[in-house]
Amino acid sequence: MCDACGCGHDHIHKETKTIDVNQSLLKANEEAAAGNRRHFDEDGVFAINIISAPGSGKTTLLEKTIEALKDELKIGVLEGDIETDLDAERIRKKGVPAVQLTTGGACHLDSVLVHKGFHLLEHSLNGEGLDLLFIENVGNLVCPSFFDLGEHIRVVLISVPEGHDKPLKYPKVIKTSHALIISKSDLVQYFDFDIEKIKKDALSLNPSLKIFVTSAKTGEGLDEWMGYVRSKLKYQKSK
Amino acid sequence: MCDACGCGHDHIHKETKTIDVNQSLLKANEEAAAGNRRHFDEDGVFAINIISAPGSGKTTLLEKTIEALKDELKIGVLEGDIETDLDAERIRKKGVPAVQLTTGGACHLDSVLVHKGFHLLEHSLNGEGLDLLFIENVGNLVCPSFFDLGEHIRVVLISVPEGHDKPLKYPKVIKTSHALIISKSDLVQYFDFDIEKIKKDALSLNPSLKIFVTSAKTGEGLDEWMGYVRSKLKYQKSK
Repeated sequence: MCDACGCGHDHIHKETKTIDVNQSLLKANEEAAAGNRRHFDEDGVFAINIISAPGSGKTTLLEKTIEALKDELKIGVLEGDIETDLDAERIRKKGVPAVQLTTGGACHLDSVLVHKGFHLLEHSLNGEGLDLLFIENVGNLVCPSFFDLGEHIRVVLISVPEGHDKPLKYPKVIKTSHALIISKSDLVQYFDFDIEKIKKDALSLNPSLKIFVTSAKTGEGLDEWMGYVRSKLKYQKSK
Repeated sequence: MCDACGCGHDHIHKETKTIDVNQSLLKANEEAAAGNRRHFDEDGVFAINIISAPGSGKTTLLEKTIEALKDELKIGVLEGDIETDLDAERIRKKGVPAVQLTTGGACHLDSVLVHKGFHLLEHSLNGEGLDLLFIENVGNLVCPSFFDLGEHIRVVLISVPEGHDKPLKYPKVIKTSHALIISKSDLVQYFDFDIEKIKKDALSLNPSLKIFVTSAKTGEGLDEWMGYVRSKLKYQKSK
């Protein structure tokens, strides 16, 4: 019998247990994330964790960023996906090393998988060091926001077709990110998408969030994004 | 020390434990889902679980479906979101009852939450029965696919801006769904989106999948979708 509603159907009330288990897993992940961060710092690598829903344009942003920065920086990519290595293939075509991390069902990357991937990536470089590591998370606006991967900065993408209501509906990822990229801005004319509203909502959740309005098609905002990456990396190297 | 890679950083290998815990939670969810299904059947309600990434157009599809069917069927909606009741408000404006289920961080609905929501929905109807229950899941193409809510059919949306590569990258939701709705078809001219490829990939994972190419803007495919809902409901009632 269900005490909550008295309907006569047996059901479960395991919320407390679930939270305990999750907290233990999150704690273990945090310890591994701290290890990754030390590892990145020792090797002089600046790590960026990129999060978004499926199809917001993470891989396309990476392709554009690699094109713009690969002559001045040594870049590597860890590609998170549930299945397939389609995205790592796309990245390799741009001339930088990429390791595909397939989670086999899991909805986010974790620090242990990133640790293993980073070793594979470094191994493939024959001793040459990286300046910049991009970690493209599994396409998911929810779960990845709970898992620190040891990154220096976290970037979230929301594309114009998804709608301007997403920050209020998915606040955790906004609160834990350093930058928000509004992608596919060339499509704004076809949607009821209010750029000022999404900026206002996102900043109300995270006042220090840096926001870029970008289009891989027209190039809008990409120079500003590259400038941001360069300045963050320079600041990290100076520490 | 890490045996896997010998790098000297302590880290975790808890995969086995995680799987055990998840399987216990999934089993508990399945039991509650079976309860929901009995509940729906006893009350003569046909339940449809709608899954997609954020911003693929679940709520818009519901608005169009309610407009088309509300004079012939008594419809109710459970609206799943992590935060806010924006979507339940949109549905109520169409003149049908809606209960907002906010998961407070969780990335999917579960059967217990649906059970509670269904009671609240029925309570608001003062004894009038529903014919059709839509359960709009949290915007997430991964986690909801693991959780049976007791629905009769599961429908997944993939919008044109997300890209035609999504079935192969997110196979679980394709394998467990009865229908795939390709939404925002009016945008196909602006994207490198291959409708024949997405159909072929999806059918290779799930040969009995019913596929609809739709646009809420032009109305393409909506009559076929309404016909499908009517036929499924009629079949269920005849059993």
